[in-house]
Amino acid sequence: MKRTLGTCYYPEHWPEEIWADDARRMAEAGLTWVRIGEFSWSRLEPTSGDLRWEWLDRAIDTLGAVGLRVVLGTPTATPPRWMIDKHPDMLAVDADGRPRKFGSRRHYCFSHLGYREESRRITRLMAERYGQNPHIGAWQTDNEYGCHDTTISYSDAARDGFRNWLAGRYGDINTLNEAWRNIFWSMEYRSFDEVDLPNLTVTEPNPPHVQDFRRYTSDMVVTFNKIQVDEIKAQSKAPVSHNYMGRVTDFDHFAVGADLEIATWDSYPLGFLEDRVGADADHQRAYARQGDPDFQAFHHDLYRAVGRGRWWVMEQQPGPVNWAPYNPSPLPGIVRLWTWEAFAHGAEAVCYFRWRQAPFAQEQMHAGLLRPDSKDAPAIHEAREVAAELADAPEVRPHQAPVALIFDYDSDWAWNTQPHGAGLSYFSLVFDHYRALRRAGLSVDIVPPSQTDFTNYRLIMAPGVMHLMEGLKQALSKAEGYVAYGPRTGARDAGFKIPVPLPPAICGLDVTISRVESLRPDMPVALQGDGAVTGYLEELVGQAPVLLETQTGAPVLVGDNSHSYCGAWLDADGLDRLVEQLCLRVGIERQVMPEGVRTRRTASEEFWFNHRAESVDTPVGPLPPAGVLRRVL
Amino acid sequence: MKRTLGTCYYPEHWPEEIWADDARRMAEAGLTWVRIGEFSWSRLEPTSGDLRWEWLDRAIDTLGAVGLRVVLGTPTATPPRWMIDKHPDMLAVDADGRPRKFGSRRHYCFSHLGYREESRRITRLMAERYGQNPHIGAWQTDNEYGCHDTTISYSDAARDGFRNWLAGRYGDINTLNEAWRNIFWSMEYRSFDEVDLPNLTVTEPNPPHVQDFRRYTSDMVVTFNKIQVDEIKAQSKAPVSHNYMGRVTDFDHFAVGADLEIATWDSYPLGFLEDRVGADADHQRAYARQGDPDFQAFHHDLYRAVGRGRWWVMEQQPGPVNWAPYNPSPLPGIVRLWTWEAFAHGAEAVCYFRWRQAPFAQEQMHAGLLRPDSKDAPAIHEAREVAAELADAPEVRPHQAPVALIFDYDSDWAWNTQPHGAGLSYFSLVFDHYRALRRAGLSVDIVPPSQTDFTNYRLIMAPGVMHLMEGLKQALSKAEGYVAYGPRTGARDAGFKIPVPLPPAICGLDVTISRVESLRPDMPVALQGDGAVTGYLEELVGQAPVLLETQTGAPVLVGDNSHSYCGAWLDADGLDRLVEQLCLRVGIERQVMPEGVRTRRTASEEFWFNHRAESVDTPVGPLPPAGVLRRVL
Amino acid sequence: MKRTLGTCYYPEHWPEEIWADDARRMAEAGLTWVRIGEFSWSRLEPTSGDLRWEWLDRAIDTLGAVGLRVVLGTPTATPPRWMIDKHPDMLAVDADGRPRKFGSRRHYCFSHLGYREESRRITRLMAERYGQNPHIGAWQTDNEYGCHDTTISYSDAARDGFRNWLAGRYGDINTLNEAWRNIFWSMEYRSFDEVDLPNLTVTEPNPPHVQDFRRYTSDMVVTFNKIQVDEIKAQSKAPVSHNYMGRVTDFDHFAVGADLEIATWDSYPLGFLEDRVGADADHQRAYARQGDPDFQAFHHDLYRAVGRGRWWVMEQQPGPVNWAPYNPSPLPGIVRLWTWEAFAHGAEAVCYFRWRQAPFAQEQMHAGLLRPDSKDAPAIHEAREVAAELADAPEVRPHQAPVALIFDYDSDWAWNTQPHGAGLSYFSLVFDHYRALRRAGLSVDIVPPSQTDFTNYRLIMAPGVMHLMEGLKQALSKAEGYVAYGPRTGARDAGFKIPVPLPPAICGLDVTISRVESLRPDMPVALQGDGAVTGYLEELVGQAPVLLETQTGAPVLVGDNSHSYCGAWLDADGLDRLVEQLCLRVGIERQVMPEGVRTRRTASEEFWFNHRAESVDTPVGPLPPAGVLRRVL
Ligand SMILES: [Zn+2]
Ligand SMILES: [Zn+2]
Ligand SMILES: [Zn+2]
Repeated sequence: MKRTLGTCYYPEHWPEEIWADDARRMAEAGLTWVRIGEFSWSRLEPTSGDLRWEWLDRAIDTLGAVGLRVVLGTPTATPPRWMIDKHPDMLAVDADGRPRKFGSRRHYCFSHLGYREESRRITRLMAERYGQNPHIGAWQTDNEYGCHDTTISYSDAARDGFRNWLAGRYGDINTLNEAWRNIFWSMEYRSFDEVDLPNLTVTEPNPPHVQDFRRYTSDMVVTFNKIQVDEIKAQSKAPVSHNYMGRVTDFDHFAVGADLEIATWDSYPLGFLEDRVGADADHQRAYARQGDPDFQAFHHDLYRAVGRGRWWVMEQQPGPVNWAPYNPSPLPGIVRLWTWEAFAHGAEAVCYFRWRQAPFAQEQMHAGLLRPDSKDAPAIHEAREVAAELADAPEVRPHQAPVALIFDYDSDWAWNTQPHGAGLSYFSLVFDHYRALRRAGLSVDIVPPSQTDFTNYRLIMAPGVMHLMEGLKQALSKAEGYVAYGPRTGARDAGFKIPVPLPPAICGLDVTISRVESLRPDMPVALQGDGAVTGYLEELVGQAPVLLETQTGAPVLVGDNSHSYCGAWLDADGLDRLVEQLCLRVGIERQVMPEGVRTRRTASEEFWFNHRAESVDTPVGPLPPAGVLRRVL
Repeated sequence: MKRTLGTCYYPEHWPEEIWADDARRMAEAGLTWVRIGEFSWSRLEPTSGDLRWEWLDRAIDTLGAVGLRVVLGTPTATPPRWMIDKHPDMLAVDADGRPRKFGSRRHYCFSHLGYREESRRITRLMAERYGQNPHIGAWQTDNEYGCHDTTISYSDAARDGFRNWLAGRYGDINTLNEAWRNIFWSMEYRSFDEVDLPNLTVTEPNPPHVQDFRRYTSDMVVTFNKIQVDEIKAQSKAPVSHNYMGRVTDFDHFAVGADLEIATWDSYPLGFLEDRVGADADHQRAYARQGDPDFQAFHHDLYRAVGRGRWWVMEQQPGPVNWAPYNPSPLPGIVRLWTWEAFAHGAEAVCYFRWRQAPFAQEQMHAGLLRPDSKDAPAIHEAREVAAELADAPEVRPHQAPVALIFDYDSDWAWNTQPHGAGLSYFSLVFDHYRALRRAGLSVDIVPPSQTDFTNYRLIMAPGVMHLMEGLKQALSKAEGYVAYGPRTGARDAGFKIPVPLPPAICGLDVTISRVESLRPDMPVALQGDGAVTGYLEELVGQAPVLLETQTGAPVLVGDNSHSYCGAWLDADGLDRLVEQLCLRVGIERQVMPEGVRTRRTASEEFWFNHRAESVDTPVGPLPPAGVLRRVL
Repeated sequence: MKRTLGTCYYPEHWPEEIWADDARRMAEAGLTWVRIGEFSWSRLEPTSGDLRWEWLDRAIDTLGAVGLRVVLGTPTATPPRWMIDKHPDMLAVDADGRPRKFGSRRHYCFSHLGYREESRRITRLMAERYGQNPHIGAWQTDNEYGCHDTTISYSDAARDGFRNWLAGRYGDINTLNEAWRNIFWSMEYRSFDEVDLPNLTVTEPNPPHVQDFRRYTSDMVVTFNKIQVDEIKAQSKAPVSHNYMGRVTDFDHFAVGADLEIATWDSYPLGFLEDRVGADADHQRAYARQGDPDFQAFHHDLYRAVGRGRWWVMEQQPGPVNWAPYNPSPLPGIVRLWTWEAFAHGAEAVCYFRWRQAPFAQEQMHAGLLRPDSKDAPAIHEAREVAAELADAPEVRPHQAPVALIFDYDSDWAWNTQPHGAGLSYFSLVFDHYRALRRAGLSVDIVPPSQTDFTNYRLIMAPGVMHLMEGLKQALSKAEGYVAYGPRTGARDAGFKIPVPLPPAICGLDVTISRVESLRPDMPVALQGDGAVTGYLEELVGQAPVLLETQTGAPVLVGDNSHSYCGAWLDADGLDRLVEQLCLRVGIERQVMPEGVRTRRTASEEFWFNHRAESVDTPVGPLPPAGVLRRVL
């Protein structure tokens, strides 16, 4: 596979006179791809039924004329104003019951059947017109599903859809009452029409009520996306993609991805560090111009799994953005580092968002490869540098990491439905494990809970999978590699009940969770030796050998030669000890990373990255700030 | 009086096959009481008018068969789903004007006349069926009035009820206009129908408008409860109780209690420390597994007053709960300590909530005496230990403490209506005084503002009673004991106006509040000697002798041989000095407690409790962590 | 001009029997002015059309009889309850879409045409009755426009008005679409009737959409006010005023002021320090009883500009207030200091709010010159002291300061529409510059962006004027004084677009902003030498001489002999260096102030004020706490 670069472009924003020059400069900068179209509905169809394709025809021709390959986006993330007149109830409704207004983007409810048909219609028309166009190299459905918390809607459409979905899942209402144990607070229903959405209750709603609503909501995204994919594939052989966001877990990305050929994601390392990584202030300050050293890598590995090997960065931050609480400038060289890091994790392409900074509208402070006055912005120099480096780089060969880390969206919703302790989240738990594996210098594959084959993985980590589906349970029990289960594994059945016999109920490991506690963040429970439990701790009973315990002798990690169970949320030192023990046991060699330095291996290359703003001595020599070292193996 | 133990049980949650074994194990553990029924409406009446008592008959029989005494709860805290169809406007409405949805509990508005009749109807039917049942030892109305902030509702029903209530109170609208001084901002009304609820105003509404709404709201709870009590008492001789919550002050517990025979409360020491005690982080960390050393005792003393001597703990925390921000496990031994502490304060019974941890629905993470798999959870061992100890313990004899501390719900609303400084609350002020009395080793009686007889109290403390009703004023002026008035005493008349002559207007004490200030928490005003004023300070003028003053010579405490007035919120050191001065004056011997240690005397016994997680040396010898020392006098 | 004192009085709050004695005591205290009437509508017109002027006639007569001059307020800030029945849709609607209720004040929407006519009607009737009354010395329109965030309303009336306003501004919808570049996210409209208000969108609305709504909203205040002014001026020769608030920037005070003869403002130094100055905790604690040393002065200078030289303090805090988070008592002497400070900045009159503390309704804890029991409160002594000092003081002569500082409301909205970094506000930026000028001992004139003549100003500072209108741009380029432009100057055109060529585009200065970043507050960028950049930093390119740079050599301040541009938000040390450089360059002598000491010169006098609670040595000798030193020049 040849690695390529690209950018995101909005011909409708610029005078047609400059399109050709823009295209020429893109090509000259070494770019292969240009994504267009995804917000252009009001120009494609200014009023309902009045289609205007000509400008887009010309834009595609102009771009294609210099050899650029077009990624064409469906425009459904921004339904035009007239659509609201046609479907007034299509607007998303927030948890407070307020319909959100027209005037920005993503204002539709995934459950609205009328809008779903509009989305199918415009996609079909677009696919019919461009399905055979030789310049179209790929498609994109919609834009950033779930961005701005737009997955969940409490609309009437969602309520009606949820009732139907429940009827389909449970068949009759008594089955639902029993599955949810609605008797608990006299919450029993007499028909599916009595079930409402789980917002605005006096105190917390029944957890399975919430969890099923989360599952329903995710299914609506899958359905919405699949309709577009089907329309496109009926007309075109070019691969279909969607650009996911960072740390959006409100729908099952694997399920959406199952209908796509390529997963892409939008990587904004500085913005994400400010608004979603969740690091402490010191860490945020230290990496303010570089981004978190693990957050992008985690998503690279995640979306490689979502795309079943095929994935891109569709939007790569090129300079300060407009939307984070604070928007610093990137460290010189770090845009190059981000790009190479994506390639190190197997990206086919990295596209910079956006070509030219738009001096207008919501993203006027979002940097591009060009300044608003069309002069080169700093990032284009780093992009050109990567383009030159890529020219000499070897082809990529697929590669399996020694470690698999399971990521399960259903578990993320379950932790959210019932965190048990303030601030506890599944994403953070898995990410903490990922960080520890990276600090040990290990390459990691993230795998979905639907994985059935763990062949060649020497270590499989599965923290926090609250509902362990039968298939995964079987696959893990048959895995040849060592399986390290983490806190809350199998803690709930499909109906969000605690199973009896009590969790974790791991075949062959005599351990039972007899009690669970959550802890104030300021009262860590020290381990014997380094490290501590923070925030969450289970009381473990049983005869399984104890591998880690607290200073007062309570077992924290138990296990044998084939699997272990950790009943606690460990801090960084504790996780490092866990990883060390596991590596020793399975014979993986660790390589302890200096602060801010990370390494990644593929079948053909080894990469080292210095995420710090200072030079760092590493086992492969000193690395300058934002330094990248590539070694062909 | 013989002291007893019990538990809370939900036969409707479990297969009928296991009821008998559950009952047997309860009896074997030494339990006397089992509370049932309070959330079971959807099983008693699955649809309107379709009554199903048989399962409850059998449950009561099964429990009674092993000698258990049943506390039967009315199921009105959880109206079933069909009730909402019958009375769509019965849902409580929050301050933002949003009706709260079905799907959890306590979703009714106390003002709704239709629901009030439904509540009367189901109570009557229940009382008719079980009023003469020999196994019914007591009744409970509803469950935890006010929990989840459900006392106050801004519904149409509340608005209509409030207008009627005002018409009843003021007679004609001009009287109301004058009482509230509505002229202030042209807020005058022409009829009661023009008065709205005091939410969603542009800036603060008129304080008497808010205060009267609070009084109205409290009256609605009293009315709601009394209807149930009347229905039960018409059919049954067993005593009627209600289970109050900790630090719920939104309605007058004394007024509700006046219609009950027994006050009970639900004591969750660890949950309360996390979500409502209001202590600083160090204190929360130090007592995270034990609970605050004074918070439960305060409520024990409060509910002893509410029950006019007869009170229980109806729900005693037995392990980690599910609902606090953090839910740690209790320190070994502390469940026993909590139980004995309740008895030390005069409880007739302590019931553990709940029998078996329910592995489903909202409280699935709430520990019980049994684990979800029916094995013993840790608390049942401590309960058994107490049961054994009780067998040897003497009968309880009633006893009056040397110190009375007034608690007035109307004042709590008044401070809330007008805190004057951010974070100032009446509850906290009274609790700070209570803590200081406890640090001095004193037993305290909490008394209502309706108290007319203070015979045998050597010290009466009355901080913060903003509206000092005539009856209390007279009673205090005639009391033989020393009366220590605190800040804001008599600061408002019944119409929330500052009286002229100015407060505190204490007969025989020449002191006038000439000015009032509230202070940032970070700028305490130091006293001469130890201690400081924090948050709230009055400027006192007059000839009364000065007992405490600031370093700049401003009087803070003035008084003579029969009463004193403190015009400040004192910190802990300042309150200790206040208590010391008062004790010296009235000849009460203090016994300064080590940190975390508390003592309580009854007529026949003296108790010492170590609330700390470490051993502590005390005047009665070393006490281990969670240690309890009982001495028969 | 003779300087005078006054107070605010509410005859409708008090028995008519005490009016005469109140009047006598006002006169005896040396007061000249008494403001009345502004909240009295429900007594002037108890029901629609039933006018009752007699009590007001008598009140004016009684006050006038002792020589007091009356400021008569129109009562439109408190429409009575019956008005809501007449115009149910006149209530203001908040950003969440909730209509605010009757029951406090300022509950009207400025856009409501029906209420606008009611306001015109009552003003006309009042002006007809009192326009020739010899005791009326001045008028006041309404009360504190914008207080309690009441400028912006999201009502239907506002939506309709906004559409009309847009139609007037843009003519046709395509012009608007192009000006706002609505194509960006397919936000294009087909008619003005499709434009909604910019609240409740999914993510941020288009900045020009917001900014135009802010401009529209401000225009509604101007229109509302002008209607009253016109009605009054048709009947009366007495000057018309309005009492503005501190740090209310939601409408253009200059534009409202253009229709007034006198600008007044309501100065609450202690309340403002607690709730709006925005200082850190140490500063708030140090000045808790004195108020911020610069905040009042800033507003004095601002409202001198708004009133084109004629301005008053209409409400001067005399003691603790009721509405701040914390409400401490003023330091003895500080009420006198506040009064003299206003005169030092050119006030014609200072009126204390209020005459007698009202022991009822919302402001019952707001101190007055009298206590609720009519005894003297502390402030009246300080007022009498000032009255005596004024008797000996010279007449005031107008005076121009050496430094002009531009304040532009449109820029404040623009920064608010797009702060780019959390917490960045235009008001704070300008105020930081003002503080630095005051620390250098300089007198400052605040000037509006409409200023065309900068004659005699030796230094003109213009930080943050995001849209530099053509007139101001021309005036500044022709100014003889040195012009110091600050960050974001000219950063947007009228349509909220980034201009190309890029900002700041200052004629004759070769500097271009090539990139902009915002920074976490905890990561200042150090300058070479003292000081740092905090929060906001531009990358400057070009050949203009560099005057300040960062430690890494990035230019921060560039300039030549006639103007400079600073591309950063400097901290206090940095701003002191900026002011020092500028003063050196233009030959203004600085006088570095001790902490908490400030000086102000007029044509005839020099004043020194010690805002600290301790004595301070100053160049003019030691000043006691709250000390005031006046020197006739
Ligand atoms: Zn994006
Ligand atoms: Zn409970
Ligand atoms: Zn005011």
